[in-house]
Amino acid sequence: MSDSPVLHLAKDLISRPSVTPEDCDCQKLMADRLKAVGFNIEEMVFEDTTNMWARKGDTGPLFCFAGHTDVVPPGPAEKWHTPPFEPTVIDGILHGRGAADMKGSLAAMVVATERFVADYPNHIGSISYLITSDEEGPFINGTTRVVDTLMARNELIDMCLVGEPSSTHHVGDVVKNGRRGSLTGDLTVKGVQGHVAYPHLAKNPIHDAAPALAELAAMHWDNGNQFFPPTSFQIANIHAGTGASNVIPGELDVQFNFRYSTELTDSEIVKRVHNIFDSHGLDYQLDWTYNGQPFLTEEGDFLSAVSNAVSKVTKKAPELLTTGGTSDGRFIAKMGTQVVELGPVNATIHKVNECVKVADLEQLADMYYELLVNVLGGNE
Amino acid sequence: MSDSPVLHLAKDLISRPSVTPEDCDCQKLMADRLKAVGFNIEEMVFEDTTNMWARKGDTGPLFCFAGHTDVVPPGPAEKWHTPPFEPTVIDGILHGRGAADMKGSLAAMVVATERFVADYPNHIGSISYLITSDEEGPFINGTTRVVDTLMARNELIDMCLVGEPSSTHHVGDVVKNGRRGSLTGDLTVKGVQGHVAYPHLAKNPIHDAAPALAELAAMHWDNGNQFFPPTSFQIANIHAGTGASNVIPGELDVQFNFRYSTELTDSEIVKRVHNIFDSHGLDYQLDWTYNGQPFLTEEGDFLSAVSNAVSKVTKKAPELLTTGGTSDGRFIAKMGTQVVELGPVNATIHKVNECVKVADLEQLADMYYELLVNVLGGNE
Repeated sequence: MSDSPVLHLAKDLISRPSVTPEDCDCQKLMADRLKAVGFNIEEMVFEDTTNMWARKGDTGPLFCFAGHTDVVPPGPAEKWHTPPFEPTVIDGILHGRGAADMKGSLAAMVVATERFVADYPNHIGSISYLITSDEEGPFINGTTRVVDTLMARNELIDMCLVGEPSSTHHVGDVVKNGRRGSLTGDLTVKGVQGHVAYPHLAKNPIHDAAPALAELAAMHWDNGNQFFPPTSFQIANIHAGTGASNVIPGELDVQFNFRYSTELTDSEIVKRVHNIFDSHGLDYQLDWTYNGQPFLTEEGDFLSAVSNAVSKVTKKAPELLTTGGTSDGRFIAKMGTQVVELGPVNATIHKVNECVKVADLEQLADMYYELLVNVLGGNE
Repeated sequence: MSDSPVLHLAKDLISRPSVTPEDCDCQKLMADRLKAVGFNIEEMVFEDTTNMWARKGDTGPLFCFAGHTDVVPPGPAEKWHTPPFEPTVIDGILHGRGAADMKGSLAAMVVATERFVADYPNHIGSISYLITSDEEGPFINGTTRVVDTLMARNELIDMCLVGEPSSTHHVGDVVKNGRRGSLTGDLTVKGVQGHVAYPHLAKNPIHDAAPALAELAAMHWDNGNQFFPPTSFQIANIHAGTGASNVIPGELDVQFNFRYSTELTDSEIVKRVHNIFDSHGLDYQLDWTYNGQPFLTEEGDFLSAVSNAVSKVTKKAPELLTTGGTSDGRFIAKMGTQVVELGPVNATIHKVNECVKVADLEQLADMYYELLVNVLGGNE
């Protein structure tokens, strides 16, 4: 039995060792297929990152499949049961780095698109692809720069499906309709170093900071809302001291991270944190890294179209969640785009022996096809 | 002009590179001199450490000169103006490692003792020497083990002068009549590691500990007393975190130190600290290192004898202080001994170009002689 179109393309993609920021011509493979069904291909290379913007049609609404061809490193090769870049099907399960995150999704998108274009040659609006090779890396030269380019020419995506592995137990059981924001603070509290025997000649930054950190840890930031859990503050790293037990350290370094709901903005958080440190009279420096604004796609036609596409395949409505880490969806949402994430089960991603059920990829292609029908098939 | 007896012996001691735990026959040099004036010498070797217990007389009261023949490493040789183990007098100042801490004191003790025994052949009580070669090191096999040995045979020192460099600006301006206690706590607070995006699945030990550390830092431990400043708590080291900004750490390590007055005992401190951690519901492990009990020699005949001996030489009463780090006096005080520290100016100790005024060593020998007269010369 020969491989199905989805499995065939997934294997072809997985066999390319495209560890971030490498693309290894994955995008060219996709581009050749899309070009054949009427897409215009725009390669956007920024520094070490290969990006592709592909579009079919020049009217609205503009629907987009988004994703990435890069994968995380395979880790220790000896722990893999099959070579990470030799896609292997065992008992109906496809093994290989990127099988679930997210070369399987990319294959499903392309095959779904080919079918849809064949079945609906006169579909309304436009279909596009926004594909990068640095989603797993520093995400500086990838999706965010393509979005900047599109916004500069006022080419705005209306609806977007990111193929990230959103599913928990069964493919399609979870659709992510938003993500929390992420904000990191790097704090240095300044004191005066000295000998513990002469505390009056020193100023202990750990002592100065402890009440402020306790206050931050105990703070209630918001109540969250229907789609978001309450905003969470976590200290990830704290370091001070020379190693000697008789020296009062001169500096304390603390790194903390916020995962925040749409009830708060980054500027409100920054203001509240500074107020706390100021009220404790700390001598400090605080540098912020803005990892991404929260976004939310609220109930509406697009979310219904996604739910219906999933239900049609799985006979069960997906759960809508905003949990988990960040994704490139945050950059696309800046355009005012309605963004959802729908992809394979995420149990094995970033681990050794990453794998996905072949049947899940076929179902995913069916869901993507039904979604295209729901949003762009209208005039047929 | 030939060297004075004090300078001659100080130079002989300094020329031996007795970095801890080496003694380089410094104690033998002293022993030969003391034997010649009637001392019985007992060598007490424990592991890598050479100790000497020398005693003249078998009646009470038992007076003791205590000190150490070991020195700290010289550090970078190129920063010394004169070779560290080649004692050199320039403009009346003796240079060399150990000149101030404390081979100069040892020379002054021996010469003062020789003079006293010659002038007071029928003195009352006994004179002793407790000398070690590990005061600057781990202080495990030195004074503390000699003290254990003496206590086991009920040979208890009544009065002790430790020749540590106690002076600040002029020799004899400060006598230390006690030292604070030192107690170190090594705390590990246990949490559950996790991803910052899923705080409900983790338990942040930094957050758990922050209020308890804030409470400890703000705590008023005691008021001190006439001779001691209030007890001081200082966090010296704090570490947690994987380095990643998106990981909640599983453990927090904190090291803190108490310098405590005679108003508190180590067991009271330990109890109060555990109460605080328990009241905050921390899951923790806490290991204590008992660096030394506080000791205090209160006003009385011995302290008067010391003050008068200093005043007779300098025409000014010394200041009595308990500040600064720890010394071997803490081990001797365990016997119920009245302990004081009187030695050279400490400005250059443990530094490159350690030095001491030759005239200060002569004055120190005079003070030690006057002290022997005051405490043991009585019957003449």
